[in-house]
Amino acid sequence: MSGPIDFYFDFSSPYGYFAAQSIEALGARYGRAVEWHPVLLGAIFKTTGARPLADVPYKGDYSRHDWNRLSRLTGIPFKVPALFPIAAANPSRAFLYVARRDEVNAKRLALALYHAYFVDGRNIGEADVVSAVAAENAFDPVEIGAALVNPAVRDELRHVVGQAEARGVFGSPYFVVDGEPFWGWDRLAMLETWLDRGGF
Amino acid sequence: MSGPIDFYFDFSSPYGYFAAQSIEALGARYGRAVEWHPVLLGAIFKTTGARPLADVPYKGDYSRHDWNRLSRLTGIPFKVPALFPIAAANPSRAFLYVARRDEVNAKRLALALYHAYFVDGRNIGEADVVSAVAAENAFDPVEIGAALVNPAVRDELRHVVGQAEARGVFGSPYFVVDGEPFWGWDRLAMLETWLDRGGF
Repeated sequence: MSGPIDFYFDFSSPYGYFAAQSIEALGARYGRAVEWHPVLLGAIFKTTGARPLADVPYKGDYSRHDWNRLSRLTGIPFKVPALFPIAAANPSRAFLYVARRDEVNAKRLALALYHAYFVDGRNIGEADVVSAVAAENAFDPVEIGAALVNPAVRDELRHVVGQAEARGVFGSPYFVVDGEPFWGWDRLAMLETWLDRGGF
Repeated sequence: MSGPIDFYFDFSSPYGYFAAQSIEALGARYGRAVEWHPVLLGAIFKTTGARPLADVPYKGDYSRHDWNRLSRLTGIPFKVPALFPIAAANPSRAFLYVARRDEVNAKRLALALYHAYFVDGRNIGEADVVSAVAAENAFDPVEIGAALVNPAVRDELRHVVGQAEARGVFGSPYFVVDGEPFWGWDRLAMLETWLDRGGF
């Protein structure tokens, strides 16, 4: 088997951020391409009845503690942003706009946006911050700014989120490989076992 | 450090069942005792607003798929019981009653009850099933049956669940070691890293 790994992530999801740092290398070790799909959990949570992690009693505190220790354990820098969570439509649109012509550069932009949010604490939910991060990473900020309000790009994001939901994606990160779903940063090891053994 | 591992589990929790199969061996590898605490997630969910996994759209289906693959991966037998989930007060009371005088035997009873539910599909929520499982495992069924309606044992269960909630336990399995919390079967590897390194 040699199909791609579908990687669903929300730009406002810390566990999505952590997974984004290692999923490409993981795929490469097993000769699998990784297809990135930005999702909006807020929209999907309307169906599942879930709430943002940070709002859930006990679980919210546990999660904040967990993100910081994941950072210590993995060496990946992380800081809970002052504004958290955010609506991730704008960074998602920027990603999709770039991805339509250049997937590699789109992933580079995604990592830069994630870094701006979860390391530098900048509010990437805002269009001008997305454009500024794009400019700092050698993208054309005017072009990106226009993409954020482009109806075709907005439609594409709705389509991507709808497809994810139709596939049963209910959290971030969420992976599908060979039709097999894996939810959560915690399951990267199991996903790797799957790739290593060619299924189980 | 050499404090115990606190292991919180719900008798109706598949991930608790899987964790129960390996937590004693894990503790033993690092010279840590394991203290088992039965909890009732239904009571705790009233505070957190969570719902039983099986009832959550998408997540319920994912979980059922996940339990079956965990069984294949680990070799631990598992079958989703016809009646699932159940209120776990009765098996919890039986456990606490036995644990008060003999912790090792109480763990043996817990594993037998878990097996009766998640392998044989018997409804361990019912008092007479708990007594029957106890009898099959060399406990006195009359004594166990009396314990299930003993006000002191009922009070003790309320106390154990209240203490767990006060500690922030919001799921099953949930572990605390050296004051550090770990939620979920997925985190057994991280818990082991903690024990191996003496913290991180």
